[in-house]
Amino acid sequence: MIFASDNWSGASPKIVEAVAEAARRGGPAYGSDPLTKAVEKRFSELFEREVAVFFVGTGTIANALSLGHFARPGAVVLAHREAHILADEPGSTELFGGGTRPVALDGAGGKLTPAGVVAGFDRYPTGNTFHGNVVAVTLTQMTELGTVYHPEEIAEIAGIAHQRGAAVHMDGARFASAVASLGVAPADITWRAGVDIMSFGGTKNGCLAAEAVVIFDPARAEGFGIARQRAGQTFSKGWFMAAQLDAYLRDGHWLALSRHALDKGRELAAAIEASKSARLALRPAANEIFAFMTSATIERARAAGAAFYPWSTASLPEGSAPREGEQLVRLITSFATTSDEIARFAAVLDGGA
Amino acid sequence: MIFASDNWSGASPKIVEAVAEAARRGGPAYGSDPLTKAVEKRFSELFEREVAVFFVGTGTIANALSLGHFARPGAVVLAHREAHILADEPGSTELFGGGTRPVALDGAGGKLTPAGVVAGFDRYPTGNTFHGNVVAVTLTQMTELGTVYHPEEIAEIAGIAHQRGAAVHMDGARFASAVASLGVAPADITWRAGVDIMSFGGTKNGCLAAEAVVIFDPARAEGFGIARQRAGQTFSKGWFMAAQLDAYLRDGHWLALSRHALDKGRELAAAIEASKSARLALRPAANEIFAFMTSATIERARAAGAAFYPWSTASLPEGSAPREGEQLVRLITSFATTSDEIARFAAVLDGGA
Amino acid sequence: MIFASDNWSGASPKIVEAVAEAARRGGPAYGSDPLTKAVEKRFSELFEREVAVFFVGTGTIANALSLGHFARPGAVVLAHREAHILADEPGSTELFGGGTRPVALDGAGGKLTPAGVVAGFDRYPTGNTFHGNVVAVTLTQMTELGTVYHPEEIAEIAGIAHQRGAAVHMDGARFASAVASLGVAPADITWRAGVDIMSFGGTKNGCLAAEAVVIFDPARAEGFGIARQRAGQTFSKGWFMAAQLDAYLRDGHWLALSRHALDKGRELAAAIEASKSARLALRPAANEIFAFMTSATIERARAAGAAFYPWSTASLPEGSAPREGEQLVRLITSFATTSDEIARFAAVLDGGA
Amino acid sequence: MIFASDNWSGASPKIVEAVAEAARRGGPAYGSDPLTKAVEKRFSELFEREVAVFFVGTGTIANALSLGHFARPGAVVLAHREAHILADEPGSTELFGGGTRPVALDGAGGKLTPAGVVAGFDRYPTGNTFHGNVVAVTLTQMTELGTVYHPEEIAEIAGIAHQRGAAVHMDGARFASAVASLGVAPADITWRAGVDIMSFGGTKNGCLAAEAVVIFDPARAEGFGIARQRAGQTFSKGWFMAAQLDAYLRDGHWLALSRHALDKGRELAAAIEASKSARLALRPAANEIFAFMTSATIERARAAGAAFYPWSTASLPEGSAPREGEQLVRLITSFATTSDEIARFAAVLDGGA
Repeated sequence: MIFASDNWSGASPKIVEAVAEAARRGGPAYGSDPLTKAVEKRFSELFEREVAVFFVGTGTIANALSLGHFARPGAVVLAHREAHILADEPGSTELFGGGTRPVALDGAGGKLTPAGVVAGFDRYPTGNTFHGNVVAVTLTQMTELGTVYHPEEIAEIAGIAHQRGAAVHMDGARFASAVASLGVAPADITWRAGVDIMSFGGTKNGCLAAEAVVIFDPARAEGFGIARQRAGQTFSKGWFMAAQLDAYLRDGHWLALSRHALDKGRELAAAIEASKSARLALRPAANEIFAFMTSATIERARAAGAAFYPWSTASLPEGSAPREGEQLVRLITSFATTSDEIARFAAVLDGGA
Repeated sequence: MIFASDNWSGASPKIVEAVAEAARRGGPAYGSDPLTKAVEKRFSELFEREVAVFFVGTGTIANALSLGHFARPGAVVLAHREAHILADEPGSTELFGGGTRPVALDGAGGKLTPAGVVAGFDRYPTGNTFHGNVVAVTLTQMTELGTVYHPEEIAEIAGIAHQRGAAVHMDGARFASAVASLGVAPADITWRAGVDIMSFGGTKNGCLAAEAVVIFDPARAEGFGIARQRAGQTFSKGWFMAAQLDAYLRDGHWLALSRHALDKGRELAAAIEASKSARLALRPAANEIFAFMTSATIERARAAGAAFYPWSTASLPEGSAPREGEQLVRLITSFATTSDEIARFAAVLDGGA
Repeated sequence: MIFASDNWSGASPKIVEAVAEAARRGGPAYGSDPLTKAVEKRFSELFEREVAVFFVGTGTIANALSLGHFARPGAVVLAHREAHILADEPGSTELFGGGTRPVALDGAGGKLTPAGVVAGFDRYPTGNTFHGNVVAVTLTQMTELGTVYHPEEIAEIAGIAHQRGAAVHMDGARFASAVASLGVAPADITWRAGVDIMSFGGTKNGCLAAEAVVIFDPARAEGFGIARQRAGQTFSKGWFMAAQLDAYLRDGHWLALSRHALDKGRELAAAIEASKSARLALRPAANEIFAFMTSATIERARAAGAAFYPWSTASLPEGSAPREGEQLVRLITSFATTSDEIARFAAVLDGGA
Repeated sequence: MIFASDNWSGASPKIVEAVAEAARRGGPAYGSDPLTKAVEKRFSELFEREVAVFFVGTGTIANALSLGHFARPGAVVLAHREAHILADEPGSTELFGGGTRPVALDGAGGKLTPAGVVAGFDRYPTGNTFHGNVVAVTLTQMTELGTVYHPEEIAEIAGIAHQRGAAVHMDGARFASAVASLGVAPADITWRAGVDIMSFGGTKNGCLAAEAVVIFDPARAEGFGIARQRAGQTFSKGWFMAAQLDAYLRDGHWLALSRHALDKGRELAAAIEASKSARLALRPAANEIFAFMTSATIERARAAGAAFYPWSTASLPEGSAPREGEQLVRLITSFATTSDEIARFAAVLDGGA
């Protein structure tokens, strides 16, 4: 009953086996091996256009280097208040941008709104040398509240940003969940909708440690390689990254993994809806479930071995609020979640242990 | 005949298997899993004292975070001219120290000298607010020229640094080579000799991607954890790092791997000495061999499939210089080098292909 | 009718004459001249304890260096949403802290509240390595909305900060206004109330360009001198700063200047209260007046030559809000404001021109 | 007998009077006053082309912001070993470039050589992501050893830099000395010779505190204004800077001041040449004199009240070296040096007191 996070799972056997095979072979260092080159190409196929891609070790550095790529003195980045860059990256945007300021915007259900983004820009008029200059807007897809941006929502926000000379970044730590949930092509919710650069996550969906920064216009990638090396993110045994992402993307394995997580998320949501001691706080898009539970239920579930986290109610949509005695909790399913786990959890909710 | 670098090898099967096993299990994220805790303890055993240890993904970030840990405005770090931080970390010391200045010192055979270090300090008098303040001296063990510092050499330099209020860092990307070559305990060439913090390398000696920063006085480790997270180096599936280092350190596997590299290094050095078309530029301490070869020999070797790099002669010791027509090259053996490779290389040197 | 800002005034003749006299004399560079030493001592007398003092050129750098003095990786600074560091220092806190994050807190009338500060700290639990660590709370005295913190208000907030290991900074760009308004000793609203470091402003109150960072415990000043030089703020002709501050502090000149500004502020407030076309938005503490005026009135006043700025209503206290057609404007009086200017402005408000 | 530095002088009475006059007037803040606008134009006349100009308070920040303007991750700046940025700006280039690395080059007489600059570039091949990328070469005019670059020398180095995609910066803290010494137009040794950006110094030549960054192609000035504000260098009473530079440039006052310093420098050099106890180490170009003196002479001179500094012999040209018992000292004359001072110094050298 591990619903704490999708990064508590192990790794997909196919991916581990690919690493083992590459480890038997070795190869030229720092990404000059043939497998790295091949996987870089695979990203271009995935996104249906030539892209520049840079493998890195964590989602945090993928975000920080992506946003840093657009930084200049006085840079401001607009982000949702619950975005990972604001909540869990302590000074990373600031450091890798040489002093960039991430500014928190509100938005129900973890999503930026066009009006909110416009208001954010309005605080930093172009040409003003005192307040700051917005260089990028960052969207999280799937969001921290388990919701998703539809292609046209992304396009609207991206249009606002581009009109004002800012770039659009997508934090795709759970990009696979969004693609699986929306049933769209990866291109549809990225560059076709105006995304300029993204953090493409593999770790939360079955890799060991494999993330990638994708720059959709390769002409804008200049300088990214040295910034990555400066950050200590050019892995000498680069094939170790490439092997993971090769297996991840081969034959749609990444979507198979995320669809499994999604299916288990639906089962879990259904179990919660059916239970008498918990209720959904939000309609989940995929594998991230937010529920209201009483303290007694939470204690009972934990005592039975369930792992999950409490969450802030600050970004719940209107109309969704805990009742007296309830708390908001977050539960996440992964590629490794089993129906048995969910059945046991359902039993615990209904008073069993 | 891969002598380009020890990071061109694959990874030790034992280490890969340990990762595969951990991947089947998974566990709490961000280093709160039991294996991480166990391996952290193992480092204390290895160094015969309680230490604080932080796993990171690359040697570059291990160095940058280590030096950054002692940074303050106007900070200066003294380093050998050929140190990795000066040669291959483009702005990393500067970035992670918030503006630290690494200053290049000369030294034959890749080694800092006590007199050179004193002169370095003399350029930055304590209390002066214009020139800079030396906050750390960094030593590479094994050095970039394949030589090693003996315990008393480290102690002398560390004494100079400590007397002037600076910390001592060791870049131990090839620490195992130094330990194997010197036949000392890890403690003897680190904290017992005055080293305060080190970058402990695993990747070049058989890991996939596993390095660690070791702070020998845990009381001085405050703030390192958040600095690591800021740098995007807290791996969510932390057990993946821990599993590598667990297998690496278990039952002396790390020393077995480095002794193999060392033995093959000696074979390679002997083959060069015995050849008519190459000669040693330096007496190698372990698995890093520097040789003078004519361009014709270099071409012949490359044509036969040998991989190795040219090197700068700037830090050769007195008396060691290329003759007319010769170039300096670097050859590195690894845990995976075979006697067969060396025999083939010897044949190529002697005119075969 | 210049009410745009107190930095639109020229400079006090006494201060200019002191600069002229020092310029005839010259002296050792970089603050080693006798006048600088004497003025540094004068600050200790002013604050009734030995302090460390560092002259700098602007309030922005005084704030940035002050907050940077407490920075470390992952540092967070809590500030009022309208604080100068958030509104007008584009990335300065971030840059000089090597990546510090300033976090905006709300508070009516431009003042932080104890509850708000506690909530700010609660978002960054001690020891957590993901969210950030609060290293300082910054208060503006007099605030951006023309209000003042009373000694016990400062003490309460400082107590909260100190209990959690954070320092307390005061942005005193208009410190003289606060002292004049409250009728307290400078010590009462600084170190006696728990302030650790302050930006002491002279420019807005009659100097040409003279600010000082005051560190109340000289033992905590280590490293500030080199940080100032790194920032390019150690003026070679340091006597030029010292001469201004010498004349500023001599014989209470600074308070005479601020009392004049305060008196004119009261006249201006009275004129607004008496007028039919404007009304006070806030009870002013000193020389910063916020008023609601209709667009027609604003246009008329500007046409008549009055200079003042519109302002955001975001931090008005409850119960204070513009009526239909009104806007919030800020008017500031200075050491140079005349009763004649105010009389003319009053006439304009009442329909004249 | 103040030969310690030209910044030990007071300030030119004309410049002080201009400040006093502006202080009586005041005006809009932050450089939006008419005087600032007028002086900005005056710089375009001075340089015979439209330029972008930004006033700042010190030469250190002028250098740091200039070099920071061309920074990007992994940036390297090539500078002479004795350049102010390396000797007296502790981490400034690093900080304001977000991690730029200044690299020291040798050169006799304080001057970079074309061969040295080429070798500097060769260490950082274009496109390499490990070593760093050279973004700028910086020249000091007049150099730290009192020598000057001739227009064609600048042009040759600038050509090398531009061919490799790097910018050319001139540290002109003593630019007036160079112009007076060479008898050229300011344009001849700046943009006409390939300089892209310069630190234009006023303080050492009679101002109180007035420096300017000049960007010769205004189209490349974007972003400089906010970088200056971030650095806390946008003076609110900007007319105070403008008034100094207005008087400085008006009717050739700046050249009159520097010619006086130059004349006194020649007198001082002649006195040294004529003396039995001192000799010139370098043929001085203007007002910075380097001489060899015995310790006894140095002591005698100091006892008599002469102020000057010892200097490193590291960058003396071939053939110039202290004899047994001699030391190298630096003596600087300024706009305020008198013939009487020099005569007294000459008497001291010849054994008087």
